[in-house]
Amino acid sequence: MNSKIRIGIISTAEIAHKVCLAINSSEYAEVYCVASRSLEKARQWADAHNIKIAYGSYEELLDDPNVDGVYIPLPTSLKKEWTIKAANKKKHVLVEKPLPGADSSQCMEDMIKSCEENGVQFLDGTMWLHSLRTQVAKQKKQELGKVLKVTAAMTFKAPNEEWLQGGNGRTNKNQEPQGCLGDQGWYPVGAILFAFDYELPKFVKCLSYKLNKVDTIIEFSGFLEFSDERYAYFDCGATFPHRSFVDIVCENGQIRIDDLVGGFGRTGNFNAYFENYVGSERFFVDDVQGKEEVVKVDACNHTVKMIDTFANIIQSKKTDHSWHHKSLTTHQVLAALFRATQRVGENVQIL
Amino acid sequence: MNSKIRIGIISTAEIAHKVCLAINSSEYAEVYCVASRSLEKARQWADAHNIKIAYGSYEELLDDPNVDGVYIPLPTSLKKEWTIKAANKKKHVLVEKPLPGADSSQCMEDMIKSCEENGVQFLDGTMWLHSLRTQVAKQKKQELGKVLKVTAAMTFKAPNEEWLQGGNGRTNKNQEPQGCLGDQGWYPVGAILFAFDYELPKFVKCLSYKLNKVDTIIEFSGFLEFSDERYAYFDCGATFPHRSFVDIVCENGQIRIDDLVGGFGRTGNFNAYFENYVGSERFFVDDVQGKEEVVKVDACNHTVKMIDTFANIIQSKKTDHSWHHKSLTTHQVLAALFRATQRVGENVQIL
Repeated sequence: MNSKIRIGIISTAEIAHKVCLAINSSEYAEVYCVASRSLEKARQWADAHNIKIAYGSYEELLDDPNVDGVYIPLPTSLKKEWTIKAANKKKHVLVEKPLPGADSSQCMEDMIKSCEENGVQFLDGTMWLHSLRTQVAKQKKQELGKVLKVTAAMTFKAPNEEWLQGGNGRTNKNQEPQGCLGDQGWYPVGAILFAFDYELPKFVKCLSYKLNKVDTIIEFSGFLEFSDERYAYFDCGATFPHRSFVDIVCENGQIRIDDLVGGFGRTGNFNAYFENYVGSERFFVDDVQGKEEVVKVDACNHTVKMIDTFANIIQSKKTDHSWHHKSLTTHQVLAALFRATQRVGENVQIL
Repeated sequence: MNSKIRIGIISTAEIAHKVCLAINSSEYAEVYCVASRSLEKARQWADAHNIKIAYGSYEELLDDPNVDGVYIPLPTSLKKEWTIKAANKKKHVLVEKPLPGADSSQCMEDMIKSCEENGVQFLDGTMWLHSLRTQVAKQKKQELGKVLKVTAAMTFKAPNEEWLQGGNGRTNKNQEPQGCLGDQGWYPVGAILFAFDYELPKFVKCLSYKLNKVDTIIEFSGFLEFSDERYAYFDCGATFPHRSFVDIVCENGQIRIDDLVGGFGRTGNFNAYFENYVGSERFFVDDVQGKEEVVKVDACNHTVKMIDTFANIIQSKKTDHSWHHKSLTTHQVLAALFRATQRVGENVQIL
């Protein structure tokens, strides 16, 4: 099939810049149009990104019959509404994480149900899952036997006090109900579930959390207990230096990815937004004695690879519900962790 | 001072082999004699290690006026008795960890009090604290600002099922009341306290633990909360592949030591007992953006450095109570963690 999948971008959020470049870098997709609540803003953004069509409302974009799929980087509180509207218009949906429904998975279930009923793909924006490195790591993981324990983190230091105290979408619960738990925490929680093949934990615990001046989570550490006494620990937030890793401890060795989400090599932070992302070329596998092997992989822009996945599913005309399961599972765990802040240290079950 | 400090070794435990070699490698000390409960065994071990004097009882060794200090690698349940007896004979004491008194620090306080009253040094066998790398890491830590969070681990995979199920001193609570919590857990707990400058946590939690067939701890994970909402997490045991690290997250960057205890480079496990230990030549410092710097250090045998510390204190005739504080603090935290197994997930205070 020669023609590229045509993607419409709904909203001109900061992250849309990065994903727009990725869409146009994919050999299977192109940015076809962009919509903003103001036509002027949409036109301006379209011009800056060399996009021909700009709409002054999200509805108009959804009504365009040439749009195959949409990318939704709206604030979390608006994601459900526009995902369901898009699905009802038979548009495939790529939604930026975290997913809505801070303390339950009902929202998510509604979104996915709507996509499945309309026969369209639902995919969340977890780019690292699509990298070449992740495929190799998954293979290595299988070779190392049962996963026994996982430790993961995603933290960065807020660029300034105003940012930390609610001046950014991530730190204002009106836009991001879970705050940094959802935003940064999506990655370590997703990495833990990846390691445990998306098995749901028996229960989760909030070990510690911090709120900013507008009562939004800016730091979190949690514990997950899986079947058969297997555990995971993670932390996330905007109060520590940049860390982004997962350690997967298996029966016969361990896998360590020390720049899970990136940026540029190990120097991540916000560079991923504004620099050409080349991805990491290696991860570590230690044997049971602790002897380290550096596993070399082909570098790739994992956001482009994510677009490839999305476009290939659309082209194939066969939706892949395994992605729905991954999104839902990750969200269910985050929702339980969010509820766990009300009972620090106690076991909270997945609903 | 030209003459070497004369050290007597009390018991011929497995670890005594390693420490005997280290003592004789120190330019400040020498192994002067060894004692076992059987003269034959002591003589045999002395011959194998080129030691002139062998005693068939610990008392005889303590009565030898030429002995300056003793090294005590006895099972944990016997350490208090022989430490106090040694101190009363005015011998300086180097005691293998963990320290006795599984669930309270009273034993430890008695031991230290006895050493202080007798004007002799008390030092536990935490070798990594004496390495050149630790000195450089400590300096780097100070440059990175306040310590906010620490993650650490010490695990290895039991060589076989019999070993795991009580066939080794570490896995039999009659010899090692805290099992692998004391034995392996001593390192990550000590590393956490090193990072927090030996401040005691406000409380600790046992998050998970496992017992073997003889009810001895073989796996443990715990959480420590320090003042000002600073945290630490660790795990230890004999059920996972070899891991031995500490990550110290500070305000302006982080320090990662990925082979804290060693072995030989990163391939640790039991090699440290039987091979010439050369130590690690590097650790990692990441800046606030996550950019990694490899810090090169002079390799050293940290057990030899520990002997140097012990011998230098004895030669100086001035005991250093900061080591007493480090031992006591580490033991207090382990005792609280041990008590915490009775109330998994709950906050337990240091006594």
